[in-house]
Amino acid sequence: MRANFRMQRLFVTEALNCEQAIEANSDQFNYLANVLRLADGAEILLFNGRDGEWKAQLSYPTRKKILLTPKEQTRPQPSAPDLQYLFAPLKVGRMDYLVQKAVEMGAGVLQPVMTQHVQGKITNLDKLRANVTEAAEQCGILAVPRVEEPIKLKDLLESWPDDRRIIYCDEGDEGQNPIPTLSRIKETRIALLVGPEGGFSDEERHLLRNHPSVTPIPLGPRILRADTAAVAALAVIQASLGDWR
Amino acid sequence: MRANFRMQRLFVTEALNCEQAIEANSDQFNYLANVLRLADGAEILLFNGRDGEWKAQLSYPTRKKILLTPKEQTRPQPSAPDLQYLFAPLKVGRMDYLVQKAVEMGAGVLQPVMTQHVQGKITNLDKLRANVTEAAEQCGILAVPRVEEPIKLKDLLESWPDDRRIIYCDEGDEGQNPIPTLSRIKETRIALLVGPEGGFSDEERHLLRNHPSVTPIPLGPRILRADTAAVAALAVIQASLGDWR
Repeated sequence: MRANFRMQRLFVTEALNCEQAIEANSDQFNYLANVLRLADGAEILLFNGRDGEWKAQLSYPTRKKILLTPKEQTRPQPSAPDLQYLFAPLKVGRMDYLVQKAVEMGAGVLQPVMTQHVQGKITNLDKLRANVTEAAEQCGILAVPRVEEPIKLKDLLESWPDDRRIIYCDEGDEGQNPIPTLSRIKETRIALLVGPEGGFSDEERHLLRNHPSVTPIPLGPRILRADTAAVAALAVIQASLGDWR
Repeated sequence: MRANFRMQRLFVTEALNCEQAIEANSDQFNYLANVLRLADGAEILLFNGRDGEWKAQLSYPTRKKILLTPKEQTRPQPSAPDLQYLFAPLKVGRMDYLVQKAVEMGAGVLQPVMTQHVQGKITNLDKLRANVTEAAEQCGILAVPRVEEPIKLKDLLESWPDDRRIIYCDEGDEGQNPIPTLSRIKETRIALLVGPEGGFSDEERHLLRNHPSVTPIPLGPRILRADTAAVAALAVIQASLGDWR
């Protein structure tokens, strides 16, 4: 079901039930009253990543307090996307963008991965999570992706389950088109690994190429920046193996 | 042939011939001397969009003057990519990004298109062109895409040649996967049209859907922002019809 884009959408942490009013916290109050300037009686869409999407009515019981009262469920809660997105942190601004794109393109789990050449650090997972919920708000996504604690690439590969395939972007031996490689993948569970701007180290590339669950894909004849490669890879993966079908 | 990424790459307008020294202009001087801090004798790669890529030696005949002397051609000039990228302007920051991504993904022509819901304006085509050459510098692209003057969508469609297909991103009638639609396209010449954030107007959508050279493609079940849709569409197009094969 298509998301409604004429109404604003807000992420809340509380449970969503008919007529069970939620008080806006101070950030939400500021956003609703001062940024969106919603008047008493205005309608807004609420979601919490668990209870689907609800149309709610906004009221000002006092000048400094907002209540949001869910009235009807507009969309049920979909199951979480299965696709896992494993990514080496980039510098802050670019990482925000990368995370937004992963959410838009249907990742269900975002797993930061520390590699030898990382340029960025995950200093604040809550900030990353806020970024994820904001992307979900803007794009009408109801199953909010989970953000995991960072893990070292070596540890990730050592503990990797054997029923999920890791696809990663690399200059493959098999030409430049990822589609033939993707069409031969048998697993239904998929993860995409996007390395840092500096690329993987030789040692890491050796680890990846020798891991039974890992498949490299090329992405054309040109070098792509990490965030471009991420969206491009997600597109061909979703179209070949994922939920675009 | 893979681009060399250990050496800096600089776009120049002059012809590139062996031993035919080029004087750096003031912007280039500042970049080479103060930003990159290249010393006398340093090597740098030059390209101009016509003569391939050349390894050149930098020298300071005086403290305030840099000469760049091409020594050997490292890569020949490739033919320009055929893919045309037609795009409604976005707000400035996001448009820079959009243009960079189009260059990385192999567009040969960038054609700004004015639609009813455009949010941005092209106030400065030279700025856009500078953006394009910078993206080419960073990604080792030698055939620098051409940036055309903006055109109204209606005029574009009225004067469109019949040997090139326009693919545009829309909720298609045929499900969510673009690959089947793309695989049925017969033309070898392709253009991708990406609309504004607000989408096309009803009148524009009617024009597009009734134009014999236009094919809509869906891009999955989620709503995508214009710049995400652009990269995702370019990926599936290049993989199905373009130079990823």
